[in-house]
Amino acid sequence: MANNEVKNAVGRMVPTQINGQEAIPFKGLNKHRPTGRKFGPHIPTTIDYPTDGNKVIHSLKEALQKAGLRDGMTISTHHHLRNGDLVANEIFRIAHDMGIKDLVWFPSASFPCHEPVIEYLKDGTIHHIEGSMNGPLGRFTTRGGMKGVGILRSHGGRVQAVQDGEVKIDIAVLAAPAADKFGNATGQRGPSACGVLGYAKPDYLYAENVIVVTDHLVDFPCFPMEIEGNYVDSVALIDKIGIPEKIISGTTRITKSPDRLLIADLTARFVEATGMLRDGCYMQSGAGGTSLAIGYFTHQILKKKGWKSRLGFGGSTQYMVNMLEDGTMEHILDAQAFDLEAVRSISENRNHHQYPVFNAYNFHSKGNLTSMMDIMILGATEVDVNFNGNVVTHSDGYMLHGIGGWQNCLHARNVILPVPLFRDRIPVIRDEVTTIVGPGELIDVIVTERGIAINPLRQDLLDAAKGSGLPIKTIEELKAEADRICGKVSKPKIGDKVVGAIKWVDGTVIDVVRNIEA
Amino acid sequence: MANNEVKNAVGRMVPTQINGQEAIPFKGLNKHRPTGRKFGPHIPTTIDYPTDGNKVIHSLKEALQKAGLRDGMTISTHHHLRNGDLVANEIFRIAHDMGIKDLVWFPSASFPCHEPVIEYLKDGTIHHIEGSMNGPLGRFTTRGGMKGVGILRSHGGRVQAVQDGEVKIDIAVLAAPAADKFGNATGQRGPSACGVLGYAKPDYLYAENVIVVTDHLVDFPCFPMEIEGNYVDSVALIDKIGIPEKIISGTTRITKSPDRLLIADLTARFVEATGMLRDGCYMQSGAGGTSLAIGYFTHQILKKKGWKSRLGFGGSTQYMVNMLEDGTMEHILDAQAFDLEAVRSISENRNHHQYPVFNAYNFHSKGNLTSMMDIMILGATEVDVNFNGNVVTHSDGYMLHGIGGWQNCLHARNVILPVPLFRDRIPVIRDEVTTIVGPGELIDVIVTERGIAINPLRQDLLDAAKGSGLPIKTIEELKAEADRICGKVSKPKIGDKVVGAIKWVDGTVIDVVRNIEA
Repeated sequence: MANNEVKNAVGRMVPTQINGQEAIPFKGLNKHRPTGRKFGPHIPTTIDYPTDGNKVIHSLKEALQKAGLRDGMTISTHHHLRNGDLVANEIFRIAHDMGIKDLVWFPSASFPCHEPVIEYLKDGTIHHIEGSMNGPLGRFTTRGGMKGVGILRSHGGRVQAVQDGEVKIDIAVLAAPAADKFGNATGQRGPSACGVLGYAKPDYLYAENVIVVTDHLVDFPCFPMEIEGNYVDSVALIDKIGIPEKIISGTTRITKSPDRLLIADLTARFVEATGMLRDGCYMQSGAGGTSLAIGYFTHQILKKKGWKSRLGFGGSTQYMVNMLEDGTMEHILDAQAFDLEAVRSISENRNHHQYPVFNAYNFHSKGNLTSMMDIMILGATEVDVNFNGNVVTHSDGYMLHGIGGWQNCLHARNVILPVPLFRDRIPVIRDEVTTIVGPGELIDVIVTERGIAINPLRQDLLDAAKGSGLPIKTIEELKAEADRICGKVSKPKIGDKVVGAIKWVDGTVIDVVRNIEA
Repeated sequence: MANNEVKNAVGRMVPTQINGQEAIPFKGLNKHRPTGRKFGPHIPTTIDYPTDGNKVIHSLKEALQKAGLRDGMTISTHHHLRNGDLVANEIFRIAHDMGIKDLVWFPSASFPCHEPVIEYLKDGTIHHIEGSMNGPLGRFTTRGGMKGVGILRSHGGRVQAVQDGEVKIDIAVLAAPAADKFGNATGQRGPSACGVLGYAKPDYLYAENVIVVTDHLVDFPCFPMEIEGNYVDSVALIDKIGIPEKIISGTTRITKSPDRLLIADLTARFVEATGMLRDGCYMQSGAGGTSLAIGYFTHQILKKKGWKSRLGFGGSTQYMVNMLEDGTMEHILDAQAFDLEAVRSISENRNHHQYPVFNAYNFHSKGNLTSMMDIMILGATEVDVNFNGNVVTHSDGYMLHGIGGWQNCLHARNVILPVPLFRDRIPVIRDEVTTIVGPGELIDVIVTERGIAINPLRQDLLDAAKGSGLPIKTIEELKAEADRICGKVSKPKIGDKVVGAIKWVDGTVIDVVRNIEA
């Protein structure tokens, strides 16, 4: 363990310097107050831009050269093309060919399609990634392959870091399914339509240089202006930005597993019994198979009761669109579309709104949507007996998932984690999670196929669930049951080297990921 | 004349310090390059805001106290309630009652309804105004009544000044026809509906403290979110924010004057003859009676030819809405609604868009909409033989009008000023304008009832107008004709004291207004 590590407020040893920058250890919930002012990029002038508004360049390479691409720069991308993104790999291929070194890649998320980036991490084109490292990139990083330390932030934490100047974006390279010559752009149309471009907003507002990359140039003005052209330096017109069939989320169908369906059913009965599910409630759940099943079951309850959900916050899915279109949900607020029905809906339904991530999730704002949400359904790779949650590493120590909006969503009024008691004979409930991504005070309920555990801090929920007939247990009881079934599980051999840092929503470091010898 | 004055690039003497701040003399078109970074207000944290999102305070006074109102602060307001605004006077009445002194009022425009503010200028509650001073406020200021120097900016210049940190807004007090508890707000609904709130955008993005003032609280979430609640500190709920019948613009009907109709007809024939009016053209004209007539005549030409205007930029009017709804205009891009038909249209027509003033007009952006406009119809109080234009003062030296978007619009491809040859027997064309608000290089055509003058810099237009049968004359010929009719006009007695400064779109000082002895 390096000398410059200290124990933070959740008892984890974390470095006070990461990639040569000061890092603040997590101080506990609502303890860290930001100082100083929001970041400001250099002031541009229209003198330097064409008066006819035409910023089109017929090559991404030229656009990058015009932006002054050089060693050590921070390059940002968004993840709305998901696993169908063709742009990010191309940026680093170009940088590699130009002999550029030590870039920082700052995506709003990465996907398995970005596996080619490993070569550019190996050869020094990229120094490190600040952003999720799903799948292959995470495995490579956990094995110590990355030159610098990976930094993982929530979607809201990413906005906070950009707004506050912790991450200074030199060049934002923003794939746009449709754009006009001036750089106004939308995700709603074009061969790679992806619905919304919400996660690109901090990038175009705060980057020094902004390149919009499109394969679908439309007449000026392109509406809705999800990217605003007056912040854009150039529009790179290329052949193809994405693979449409891979743009939708990996999991977009309701689970067929009987255990998962049981978890979903228990969750739906729990939110009904405790009164969280009510006329006018605000709901959010993810795109996983269990979450979708919960969405479906709660939809049926609302219909039966004649109630409406006032709003759902997306990641939007076909199941939310169904609720909107049959009148069971009044508004969908959307930060990203998970399937093609959601892409269709946002361009057709007036009550399906693009919703700014600054408002939903940025902790350094004057309030967030997320703290108003009544019901928040989230996943986890592990939970511990103190209700701490992990979404980044598996119990084998490998960092395989990004945080997404998970930490931000923990601020909802009622946070429920429907999880299986074990996966591949590895218990999900642990004495201590491998990586603390969210502190236990914010996690209210764990629903498993063998019972429901309520955080003792939520006496109100313990009272509300009494007499419901639901299988309420302590978390220790659930853990004992899992341990009985799975037997003794061997501990992974985790090294000393910090390979990843997990930022909390306020920019402090809540935990780190250490290397695993391959 | 004070010692610290220098001659700027248009030959006017201007001070190098105004209200204790450095002032940069105008350097000529496209000569001044900004340095430094965009302004950043202090970083807030959600810790300080209610988790249920409810920021409602039932009193504007309490909201101002909570915002820490104190001596010397800069208070901003927007002008979308126009001459029906009830909020601005109330702010200063409260400040006066609290004994606050030396405020700076920073409105996006002021109107005759703000005459009560004169009392607060007299008693020292307000030190000076940065913004237009239409009518009574302008007369008062020209007579030297204001403690500080008034600073006039274009709509785009105001955005530039806020973005660049030249004006730091302490408290933005933003009237909102409809708002939710969180501060999301729109101009589209409520008893004081005014269409859009576009000019409030720099205020809520850059102010340290933002108060939304409404008389119409709607369920969360309020859409469209023209003001975003995550930038809002409190929502002051009061009885009445505006007088609906005064919210529409003063002039919203086509002129009935035969001379003005002749000017309009000549203008329409000119844009047709020179080919500016064409299928797909971008058009903008104002809300004055002559401008509306020009809009009407060009509409008829487009219909006759079977052409469409690709877009019109508003101030939007019923005449533009007619074009949109009969298919002669494809898009209305809107920064403010001038009449109730425009208010109706923006909430009904999908191709009537709220358009950000940062994009349209902010000179310190990566391009502006305005430089792409094909036809730009503007007014003027005076023009001189060098084509310099004035919109702020009358020939008697009184500062009676704001700049609005006028300076920004001068960047269009073809700028046409349809003006009468004289008003009240005072010639409009002068040897020198009383105040240079826009340099002659940017003004292309003057259309009067007795002939059309084309700027010699525009040989292309001189060529295009040949053989059109239109009465093309030199500006000197037009001036001579006016002088012959009006006779000798006495010069106003203008003093030495600078009472107002006119900023150019890049933040430099293009001219000043000096006092007149009453």
